[in-house]
Amino acid sequence: MCEHEQQRMAGAGEAVPREKWFTYDVVAEDPSTHARAGVFHTPHGDIPTPIFMPVGTKSTVKGILPATLEQMGTKILLNNLYHLSQRPGADLVERMGGVHEFMRWGGPILTDSGGFQVFSHEEFVKLSDDGIRFRAVDYDGRWQEWSPEENMAIAQKLGADITMQLDQCVGYPASRKKVERSVELSSMWADRCFAAHTREDQALFGIVQGGMHLDLRVRSIRHLEDAGDFPGYGIGGYSVGEDHDTMFESLEPLCAEHMPRNKPRYLMGVGNPTTLVRGVAAGIDMFDCVLPTRTARTGTAFSNEGRINLKNARFREDDRPLDEGCGCPSCAAGFTRAYIHHLVRQKEMLGSILISQHNIWYLLDLMRRAREAVVQGAYGEFVDAWMASPASRDW
Amino acid sequence: MCEHEQQRMAGAGEAVPREKWFTYDVVAEDPSTHARAGVFHTPHGDIPTPIFMPVGTKSTVKGILPATLEQMGTKILLNNLYHLSQRPGADLVERMGGVHEFMRWGGPILTDSGGFQVFSHEEFVKLSDDGIRFRAVDYDGRWQEWSPEENMAIAQKLGADITMQLDQCVGYPASRKKVERSVELSSMWADRCFAAHTREDQALFGIVQGGMHLDLRVRSIRHLEDAGDFPGYGIGGYSVGEDHDTMFESLEPLCAEHMPRNKPRYLMGVGNPTTLVRGVAAGIDMFDCVLPTRTARTGTAFSNEGRINLKNARFREDDRPLDEGCGCPSCAAGFTRAYIHHLVRQKEMLGSILISQHNIWYLLDLMRRAREAVVQGAYGEFVDAWMASPASRDW
Repeated sequence: MCEHEQQRMAGAGEAVPREKWFTYDVVAEDPSTHARAGVFHTPHGDIPTPIFMPVGTKSTVKGILPATLEQMGTKILLNNLYHLSQRPGADLVERMGGVHEFMRWGGPILTDSGGFQVFSHEEFVKLSDDGIRFRAVDYDGRWQEWSPEENMAIAQKLGADITMQLDQCVGYPASRKKVERSVELSSMWADRCFAAHTREDQALFGIVQGGMHLDLRVRSIRHLEDAGDFPGYGIGGYSVGEDHDTMFESLEPLCAEHMPRNKPRYLMGVGNPTTLVRGVAAGIDMFDCVLPTRTARTGTAFSNEGRINLKNARFREDDRPLDEGCGCPSCAAGFTRAYIHHLVRQKEMLGSILISQHNIWYLLDLMRRAREAVVQGAYGEFVDAWMASPASRDW
Repeated sequence: MCEHEQQRMAGAGEAVPREKWFTYDVVAEDPSTHARAGVFHTPHGDIPTPIFMPVGTKSTVKGILPATLEQMGTKILLNNLYHLSQRPGADLVERMGGVHEFMRWGGPILTDSGGFQVFSHEEFVKLSDDGIRFRAVDYDGRWQEWSPEENMAIAQKLGADITMQLDQCVGYPASRKKVERSVELSSMWADRCFAAHTREDQALFGIVQGGMHLDLRVRSIRHLEDAGDFPGYGIGGYSVGEDHDTMFESLEPLCAEHMPRNKPRYLMGVGNPTTLVRGVAAGIDMFDCVLPTRTARTGTAFSNEGRINLKNARFREDDRPLDEGCGCPSCAAGFTRAYIHHLVRQKEMLGSILISQHNIWYLLDLMRRAREAVVQGAYGEFVDAWMASPASRDW
């Protein structure tokens, strides 16, 4: 064993006693919205909710050191099961000590099922009750098969604190029949994942599907509740092409009336600031999205004036930080829009890094402030203020 | 003025009293080599020598935050005058408060003359006694002219602590006549740069040319000494195609017998570990090179086993740090070769970042240890140990 394996990893939380693992405490409920504040306990630390989870697809949040993520107050990261299963492979990650040790992040990690990535190349996917047959077109292109059991085997090798069941996500618009079939398949796979999942230091979350159809969503969650004691639920199949109002039309009653109160609710793949604010009001506890880092790489920063693109010539001599009053490492160190404009125009890595830090911090901080408002019973006012502010523009 | 302009910048050294600016104290001389240890005083802090200076071409060391550079013990950075003069332009940098404020690095900065970059596209350069006419082919391609005076105007707008005279660097091999002409031109330009340079908080260094011809090198330094009281000297026109032994054949007697003792000597553009070790023995005080960051971006790391390329399949499951016992932020945080292999293969930014940090730290630390050996009068042993170690392989 090398000396470095003894070292503290960035993000490592306080030890959580085993009996508290994967329990969820609701610590406050807002009187005028469905928002809640809570704490989800995992082996690698406690997660306060509502929370934004930065995405580290291939076991790295693009361009950001784990120490910086910790400094920004990141409490949980995502890793992508599909990508890791292709490269470097789940067996290798397992031999290297699992995802935490591999990427040197000592805090909680969540892996998705990888189904979403597989379905993004629909023409190379064949579905059956037994699972998915697909071509990994962005890797070596060979045909592979995942049964729910194989998917769980990969998830358990990776060793994240939370992993997601294999599910089928359909786009929007889609025929009711197609959505109904996706609920059926996902329900069947939930049963098999639940049975196949044995790792005690890992939580398996079920995933609610059902498109924009509230009755199918309800059917999905009912099945999951009957299937077993999932410690939390993902809500998939949103943000797949519909507008936000359409999403909230079914999402809000789903959370408010049909999801169990004592389990965390994770709205998968949704991460623009306004949808986070509205999602919390609907009763969502966890969010993830590549938006803060992906848009950063095109020069786009979140700001309280709304979205700004640093490539724009109007920032050439702008000596203000990305966002006035922002406490992120980029703004706090005094980097100006003019400097970042220069970096972005010159395709310098540091441009992406500075904006990525800022954007991640922006969402982490937004959720910290949202939580505080929920605790104070003032989340309705928080939403109203947000929706009236220029920050809610463009999203 | 924004609040952030009050903030401390990374790298900011202790205030240096004005009367000490640009003086050089030799604090130790090694008995068995020509190595010296010294301190060069600048407005933004003291620079211990020998020293390696990381290169931040476009006002950014690629992928590395200024705070990280400080944490690694960086004492002075390079910026490139040619690139900054093209984008964002010297006038803009000046209006933004100069290079320190622009890139938020509060420690010393050195700008080169930009001549080297201009000459790298030889077919687009016309030379005359009055300066250089050139096309900025990597930017908008328009023809531009730099007289020595215009070059100094740009340097003074950028506002680095140290700037270099305009000079002509020739490749190797080159006819003696061509080299002689470059010494003539560079000498003439030295006079004009010296006369045009007025900024008191900036040191202007002369540059010694003369190729591999010791007599021309001596002619060049004699001219510079007569031309004015330059506070330090660059040594240009090496590492232009010759092998290292050829370089040291003229470099060593130049430093040992012909350069003034009380001025720092900066060997321009040379940065592989073994040449640094040998350069210090020859009496060089300052080094810069893009090598640590450029090779990092191709997956190559310095190590005490010699150069290693992390793309190599043999690192796929290697759970050791880049270099055993290394104290750089990448190794100290416990990132393994296996993880970095994965990042490099997947073209993840973090791979370049982790190796760049490591490589810069490697050279900074090498010079810290070299200085310590000089102070202890044991630099000869240091060189012998280095040359006998696997670390000296491949360079």
